[in-house]
Amino acid sequence: MVQDFGVRSSPEQGVARLAALREAMAAEGLDGFVVPRADAHQGEYVAPRDERLAWLTGFTGSAGWCVALRERAAIFVDSRYTVQARAQVADVFERVDWPATGLAQWIGGALESGRVGFDPWLLTLEQARGLRAGLGDVALVPCANLVDRVWPDQPAPPRGAVTAQPVELAGEAHAAKIARAAEAIAPAQACVLTLPDSIAWLLNIRGSDIVRNPVPHAFAILHADARVSLFVDEAKLSGLGDHLGDAVTVHAPEAFVSALRALEGPVRVDPASCPVAVAEALRHAPLEGPDPCLLPKARKNAAELDGARAAHRRDGAAMARFLAWLDAEAPGDLTEIAVVQRLEAERVATGCLLDISFETISGSGPNGAIVHYRVSEATDRKLQAGELLLVDSGGQYRDGTTDITRTMAVGQPGADEIAAFTRVLKGMIAVSRLRFPAGLAGRDIDPFARAALWQQGLDYGHGTGHGVGAYLSVHEGPQRIARTGTVPLEPGMIVSNEPGFYREGAFGIRIENLIAVEEAPALPGQTVPAMLRFETLTLVPIDRRLIDADLLTPDERAWLNVYHARVADEIGPLLEGAAQDWLNHACRAI
Amino acid sequence: MVQDFGVRSSPEQGVARLAALREAMAAEGLDGFVVPRADAHQGEYVAPRDERLAWLTGFTGSAGWCVALRERAAIFVDSRYTVQARAQVADVFERVDWPATGLAQWIGGALESGRVGFDPWLLTLEQARGLRAGLGDVALVPCANLVDRVWPDQPAPPRGAVTAQPVELAGEAHAAKIARAAEAIAPAQACVLTLPDSIAWLLNIRGSDIVRNPVPHAFAILHADARVSLFVDEAKLSGLGDHLGDAVTVHAPEAFVSALRALEGPVRVDPASCPVAVAEALRHAPLEGPDPCLLPKARKNAAELDGARAAHRRDGAAMARFLAWLDAEAPGDLTEIAVVQRLEAERVATGCLLDISFETISGSGPNGAIVHYRVSEATDRKLQAGELLLVDSGGQYRDGTTDITRTMAVGQPGADEIAAFTRVLKGMIAVSRLRFPAGLAGRDIDPFARAALWQQGLDYGHGTGHGVGAYLSVHEGPQRIARTGTVPLEPGMIVSNEPGFYREGAFGIRIENLIAVEEAPALPGQTVPAMLRFETLTLVPIDRRLIDADLLTPDERAWLNVYHARVADEIGPLLEGAAQDWLNHACRAI
Repeated sequence: MVQDFGVRSSPEQGVARLAALREAMAAEGLDGFVVPRADAHQGEYVAPRDERLAWLTGFTGSAGWCVALRERAAIFVDSRYTVQARAQVADVFERVDWPATGLAQWIGGALESGRVGFDPWLLTLEQARGLRAGLGDVALVPCANLVDRVWPDQPAPPRGAVTAQPVELAGEAHAAKIARAAEAIAPAQACVLTLPDSIAWLLNIRGSDIVRNPVPHAFAILHADARVSLFVDEAKLSGLGDHLGDAVTVHAPEAFVSALRALEGPVRVDPASCPVAVAEALRHAPLEGPDPCLLPKARKNAAELDGARAAHRRDGAAMARFLAWLDAEAPGDLTEIAVVQRLEAERVATGCLLDISFETISGSGPNGAIVHYRVSEATDRKLQAGELLLVDSGGQYRDGTTDITRTMAVGQPGADEIAAFTRVLKGMIAVSRLRFPAGLAGRDIDPFARAALWQQGLDYGHGTGHGVGAYLSVHEGPQRIARTGTVPLEPGMIVSNEPGFYREGAFGIRIENLIAVEEAPALPGQTVPAMLRFETLTLVPIDRRLIDADLLTPDERAWLNVYHARVADEIGPLLEGAAQDWLNHACRAI
Repeated sequence: MVQDFGVRSSPEQGVARLAALREAMAAEGLDGFVVPRADAHQGEYVAPRDERLAWLTGFTGSAGWCVALRERAAIFVDSRYTVQARAQVADVFERVDWPATGLAQWIGGALESGRVGFDPWLLTLEQARGLRAGLGDVALVPCANLVDRVWPDQPAPPRGAVTAQPVELAGEAHAAKIARAAEAIAPAQACVLTLPDSIAWLLNIRGSDIVRNPVPHAFAILHADARVSLFVDEAKLSGLGDHLGDAVTVHAPEAFVSALRALEGPVRVDPASCPVAVAEALRHAPLEGPDPCLLPKARKNAAELDGARAAHRRDGAAMARFLAWLDAEAPGDLTEIAVVQRLEAERVATGCLLDISFETISGSGPNGAIVHYRVSEATDRKLQAGELLLVDSGGQYRDGTTDITRTMAVGQPGADEIAAFTRVLKGMIAVSRLRFPAGLAGRDIDPFARAALWQQGLDYGHGTGHGVGAYLSVHEGPQRIARTGTVPLEPGMIVSNEPGFYREGAFGIRIENLIAVEEAPALPGQTVPAMLRFETLTLVPIDRRLIDADLLTPDERAWLNVYHARVADEIGPLLEGAAQDWLNHACRAI
């Protein structure tokens, strides 16, 4: 569970490994090979075995691609990772600004024709289609994974234990979930599930194959008659007892492809996540449609929401203890790493923490302006008076997943920091207090989080919110609050509400609460048939020292005071002594 | 110019006319015929000759379709026109709720196979494609217009005079516009223009073939070498002198099809507006792309914006005189029609009015809640104390097109009316004072107009704003502020800002200003490269009696007071006596 702070880059490895890969390409008669940062389950975190991109190039970011050709090779990373790639990757790899330049475009500039190989388990149907459409006379050829072939000490696949998620927390027996999902796939006779969190949700299980996300690596076939064939290493299930029941049959992962080949009738797959290899194993072209677990999983039921509330109270108390400590200690000799360690220790001390839900971001001063900052021994710095500290963190608890960002003043904050913080807060409050007609999507909500910043010519370069799982992935679709958020928001969906502002070289601000969509009770005279609103789950004070109360409207001030009163009311009784005093002080009305 | 108030429905005509159409269908061996409410130019207003849908069915609304089959016939109208169609159309036509039920769907339910005819000049490429895609085994067949064949006294095509739009008002010589547009159509060798307002903009001309929109019925071919072939009845051009110049050659409308047939090389058409007949006359399948005049026409230049400002000052003075009169007279014996007549008289008295820009909506009490209300002698009612009066109107002036809605209290307004009016105003102000990053579209702006209403469970069922032409169509694309507004807003674009609220059977509220997109000057510390904001063009008081000042934030109150001070400052000097006193009173700070 413990976060590490090692310097992970080792650019020198790339030269020899690229040479080995090219030998394997030549042996296969290929002119190129594509290496995504992905596993067969398209997860945000991958197992050590699947860190092929990092092994080959040295690049350890969470998204990227490498294309190796006979004479040229390139690494494709987005703007978040430009600096990191420069530090981690040898010059033998050209660095391409992606997606501004796509893989097909770069390959087309380097090759007129030829054959470029890829592992069909690692590219989705949509990715392969998009790539092929741009490649012209260059053929994209499925083949064995050539990195695996030249990686002598590649780790074995993970064999993490699977546990049952108690039905009291899941809120619905998995037999009922399977029956609903089976109905939803009509007219298909079967549906292939390749997303681990879909399988975990459907079967009320959790796994431990990768860090941060409690999911098992597995495949499943959901049959229209409400049976499930689960393909997973049986050793992982030893602690599961008879949880799965008669409707679920367990098969070795090696049996998956032959089971796909044997399927009769129309089979549904989700082209956004289904590996090319799965579709190619089917007898007929599949029916394409979204994974039938996505929406039901996103709409949390009453038990899952109760779990989320409990997890957020527990996590809120840990955060409050951490913030009380921080206020007493900082600046002093505190470093960003010490901040991460203390916060993690407070979460561990709850006795309920199963993992952190992602690598804690602890950025002080100018480091706060690096949106996906990961503190390492090389970048660690002491907190200095007059600076801001941005801490984005979360916990995985059996009853829920948390994700919270708070930005704190260390010493006396400057006027620019206070003005920007207050505008970020206004955006966060605008989303929090919004009522809106059912049917709207996240993209209709997103502008409210930005308008107060826009008024000063400011903005932030990331979405306002992502979906969050119920003791599952901290980044979960399909809903999000962003310009790309086209899925209507529905009651029970949990999303983050995290506007920010980043002054490069100076400071970073982000304020993040998790919020759950709920039906808004009808008001007298209401004409819209169904209105929605948000319930705030996160219960942690927002730093009053950074708020210019004169910039808040009476409605905004009222929201803040009600929120802080609720935090004091719900979190206060979980604290004692100095932490409780700190909370009461932090939550007083503005 | 003068608006008429006649009762236009005559359902009894439909039976015999439908029978005549069916005879013509039989003579052509057709099983059906499609009659859109459209001309070859896809305008909102059509000439009397093109009122085929009204002639056949009796329905006089501005949008709708009729499909006549051998045994069944139907009229398709949207929810705005449900009541009107019921009153105007004989029962021999089934009434279909469109677009909930599409034409293809209804035809498919009535016919298994067969041939349905349509006039290829009246359906666009996109419309025909959409219809064909849904029709299955029923063939959609281009043919002569069978309504024209059975309409004995069908009016002749209009021959309205064409005038030159002075370059001082157009802001750019038409030779320069033609050169720019010709460059924009590459790699096409020619582009067919069928939208009259595109042709009017491109050639700096205005027409008088239809009411309300000062456009000429004409077709044009723009050649890549910056020549234009204009197909128009030469008699319309008699007052134009040598305005058009050497680059423009005039041809009879009858020569259009043979000119299309003669075109070499790739030809561009806009599938959203190009008649099927045009594409079919071309030798090769056309290149499809937007009409190259749409965006340049939408981005008003400095002279057009100056013209718009002048038109709005003049129109604002007329509105102020009208409102001063209304306040002195109402309720008394005033009727909705008297309101329309007085307002029109004030605009006529400016000496500059060339037409009203659409039929004035004058709805008192419950009539105000009918969004597209047209007062007629049958619906006219007296203004009563305690009611609201909604007036939506505009003028066509040589220097600009106006469109304004104000909602006024007649006598003492009720609390529900004041609360709703204030929330509509908050939305109008939110859009007016917004700053936003360049690149955003109308759909990103639209929610701000609604949020204050949403907070009370209220909303309105129309978009927030449409584009407006420069002495051209009052409804002009491609930009709009609405959920369907995906075109980025650009400096110079004029849009309306008109949130509303409608309490069925009780009252209607709409507040509408025209606003122009402009670059926002950079602020200290700004991080967004380019910000936009709106300049308000409309200068008419907003009824203070309907505003609950306690519901406004300080920023909103400041916006309103600055706006009213500007109205007093710019419009006051154009008034005299009682009207000036009224204006000063109406504009005092809140």
